[in-house]
Amino acid sequence: MTAYEDACGHFRRMDNFVHLNAITRWDQMANMPPQGNEARSQALAELEGLLHEMATSAALGALLKGASSEPLDDLQRANLREMTRAWRTATALPDDLVKEMTLAGSRCEHAWRTQRSQNDWQGFASNLREVVRLAREQARCLAAGTDRSPYEALMDLYEPGARCADIDRLFADLKTWLPALMQEVLQRQQQRSVIAPQGPFPKSAQRALGLETMQFIGFNFAAGRLDESAHPFCGGVPQDVRLTTRYNEADFLGALMGVIHETGHGRYEQNLPREWLGLPLAQARSMGIHESQSLSFEMQLARHPGFAHCLRPLLVRHLGEQPAFEAENLARLLTRARRGLIRVDADEVSYPAHVILRYEIERPLIEGQIEVEDIPGLWDAGMQQFFGLDTRGNYRDGCMQDVHWAQGLFGYFPTYTLGALYAAQWFASMRRDLSGLDEHIARGELGGLFDWLRDRIWSQGSRWETSELVRRASGEPLNAAHFRRHLESRYLP
Amino acid sequence: MTAYEDACGHFRRMDNFVHLNAITRWDQMANMPPQGNEARSQALAELEGLLHEMATSAALGALLKGASSEPLDDLQRANLREMTRAWRTATALPDDLVKEMTLAGSRCEHAWRTQRSQNDWQGFASNLREVVRLAREQARCLAAGTDRSPYEALMDLYEPGARCADIDRLFADLKTWLPALMQEVLQRQQQRSVIAPQGPFPKSAQRALGLETMQFIGFNFAAGRLDESAHPFCGGVPQDVRLTTRYNEADFLGALMGVIHETGHGRYEQNLPREWLGLPLAQARSMGIHESQSLSFEMQLARHPGFAHCLRPLLVRHLGEQPAFEAENLARLLTRARRGLIRVDADEVSYPAHVILRYEIERPLIEGQIEVEDIPGLWDAGMQQFFGLDTRGNYRDGCMQDVHWAQGLFGYFPTYTLGALYAAQWFASMRRDLSGLDEHIARGELGGLFDWLRDRIWSQGSRWETSELVRRASGEPLNAAHFRRHLESRYLP
Repeated sequence: MTAYEDACGHFRRMDNFVHLNAITRWDQMANMPPQGNEARSQALAELEGLLHEMATSAALGALLKGASSEPLDDLQRANLREMTRAWRTATALPDDLVKEMTLAGSRCEHAWRTQRSQNDWQGFASNLREVVRLAREQARCLAAGTDRSPYEALMDLYEPGARCADIDRLFADLKTWLPALMQEVLQRQQQRSVIAPQGPFPKSAQRALGLETMQFIGFNFAAGRLDESAHPFCGGVPQDVRLTTRYNEADFLGALMGVIHETGHGRYEQNLPREWLGLPLAQARSMGIHESQSLSFEMQLARHPGFAHCLRPLLVRHLGEQPAFEAENLARLLTRARRGLIRVDADEVSYPAHVILRYEIERPLIEGQIEVEDIPGLWDAGMQQFFGLDTRGNYRDGCMQDVHWAQGLFGYFPTYTLGALYAAQWFASMRRDLSGLDEHIARGELGGLFDWLRDRIWSQGSRWETSELVRRASGEPLNAAHFRRHLESRYLP
Repeated sequence: MTAYEDACGHFRRMDNFVHLNAITRWDQMANMPPQGNEARSQALAELEGLLHEMATSAALGALLKGASSEPLDDLQRANLREMTRAWRTATALPDDLVKEMTLAGSRCEHAWRTQRSQNDWQGFASNLREVVRLAREQARCLAAGTDRSPYEALMDLYEPGARCADIDRLFADLKTWLPALMQEVLQRQQQRSVIAPQGPFPKSAQRALGLETMQFIGFNFAAGRLDESAHPFCGGVPQDVRLTTRYNEADFLGALMGVIHETGHGRYEQNLPREWLGLPLAQARSMGIHESQSLSFEMQLARHPGFAHCLRPLLVRHLGEQPAFEAENLARLLTRARRGLIRVDADEVSYPAHVILRYEIERPLIEGQIEVEDIPGLWDAGMQQFFGLDTRGNYRDGCMQDVHWAQGLFGYFPTYTLGALYAAQWFASMRRDLSGLDEHIARGELGGLFDWLRDRIWSQGSRWETSELVRRASGEPLNAAHFRRHLESRYLP
């Protein structure tokens, strides 16, 4: 056995434990009764201890070093690159720091659940300071010996290869045209009427609608499920994808669009290269690319005006006929833009501004140019600038709205907007590569679209660095002009 | 830290992995889509490899040896006894034998699924020979250096301390009176009329009925669930008990009695001593004692003529009113005796004969007095003797009906009848200890009954050897006379 093969064996063994972790974590969210939590948390902590030990083992480091001088083909070299990336990331942090981060993050997040509803910024800030202190230390450790800045080193965890210079360029571009576009969309939409759906919509009917919609957009139910949880997510493993949603009987669109979004994540997982499953080469490329799939499904496809013609019969079958389900009205419902305080409720026009706001706060926060107490002032100024909204004193719907910072997750937010930009770029490429894409969508003929995504993105796993994946899939580097053209053609036709 | 404490730490760590194993195995049966099976099987095999390594570690052996000369209190000594038993059992078999057994068992069981429906005894026998060869080797290894016979060593895995001499004595006693009693019960029942329930009974109504019945008999839903699977079982962990059932819309009694049976197992698990959870001391005493709980619930309680008065309003609420749900008719429905070919469909009167038949075949088979080809002849003779039924040529509903032998599970069958005998003994003791037990059951006042089981059985975990547990709970050793009196008073009043 070569060192390369031994290293692969090590990762395949880890992957077996990752499988158990994924399924029991899904179960914790979707099934577990409350009194099961303590024993489950202990069992998962034990498992993660084992996984950490395996991921940081000195023997693995030696195997990877040995493998680097062995003759490997292209795919093996790509896999070695990803195995080495995983090993470096796992070994970059001292064990004590990891434990402190876990502790501080879960303490801050736990308190945040009540502090948020009480609008208690001071209480939250006192925990957040420790979380930020540790995140700065984490960033410093990850950046050491690389040419990355500390914030870049955090982004690199979720979006390998992402650089602040690129993000700055993309976001600066968005800032030149997005506020005016948002303004114009809102003005135009004021003048059109939309019929609101009349509920209630029973949960069982919504579930049946969700299942049939998933089937329609190609989810493989022989290798996955749909269940319920308080916070929807795409979990499980590529061979057994576990999607969740939550139902509100007054509003079926939330659950339905959520299901379509998670199905985008799910189909990416289900179509990762099977022959490499268990190895880093087979994993999804990055969080931004993952989000580009969920947004390809939810934003590009499901809110496409033609798709309303596909949705209409499904809605009528499961929820009964009503005027709101007329195709043109449905399309309007699915493209309503709004100026709102809450990121997760935002439409695709306003969403990037929420992300830019957070990026412009968390980056200097990690790099030490600002402190926790500066956050609310910067938040208020940003909300005023981007949306003209006054958020002073409203921490709950302001800088305390997201769970990310409470958990110590910094450098993640940009991936949401990268996902939106990538998704627009995929669809621009498809329009070039596949003739009549928009007509096909309106007729529900989605095979060509899915084949394109499968060939160009899903089946590629982590074979290429992100920039190379993007170039190979679309013929050019990431280009925000596609997102602009998408918004203009959909919202300002 | 003492060696004793270190050994406890080792078992607690193992218990965390046992937790993950239990939940993912439950998921495999209750949730997993078909294409998830290959990756799941690999992940579980990896986990079991780890558990086997931990259970057989030389370091653990040294700790247990060290602990045996440390000063320990009574509970610690009992826990050390159980830890040592687990270690001895785990280390008794060579790794290669374990692997061969797993392979041969799963090959034989997999083929059995189709061979059974094709009545293909020759095909089955060709796989079973290898399974039996390995089980004999397993029994020889387990018996080596003990005073147990090979078959006793297998029984000891499921019923620690069980001896063939005791089983022989109990079964010989049953054989003196049970056939005549069965005969008389069947004759009497021929003369009474029973109104059959008129279906269909929708699955959702049956599920709601099952849930309310579980609630009524004390299942803690904050620490457990009810789901569906092809083969009902009680899985999960004491803090999170996962029961399953299956529904037949033509017959609600199968699922309902199944749910009550599994609830007996489940309440035992939910009420094991919490302060010792994670250690062998906190585990259920044996398979026979476990079955005594499921049969206390299903046979002693739920088929008690008084319990029909408790069930009646639940049936009417969930399935609607019908003549069959009149209490006296319900009681008759729940105590129908039948001469049948299939063990799992047997009533409590005929069940022991099915077990004795199997015991009288598997014991000489393991000990080398008979061979696989002798099974059908012995089976036919036994069925003729016990039930007067001709089973020649019907392997499917004869010696091929159970999964146990196909999987290499020998020595397990006696625990079913031990469970029935123990359950009768518990109820005889309760009648002595609690006044008016039968009237309380008819009124649905079950607190005293459950308290008795909790105090005497559930909360004791594995503190005592089985014979001592039985003596402490009921004041005497296992005594089949209680089972006889139970059958006579219920079936020949």
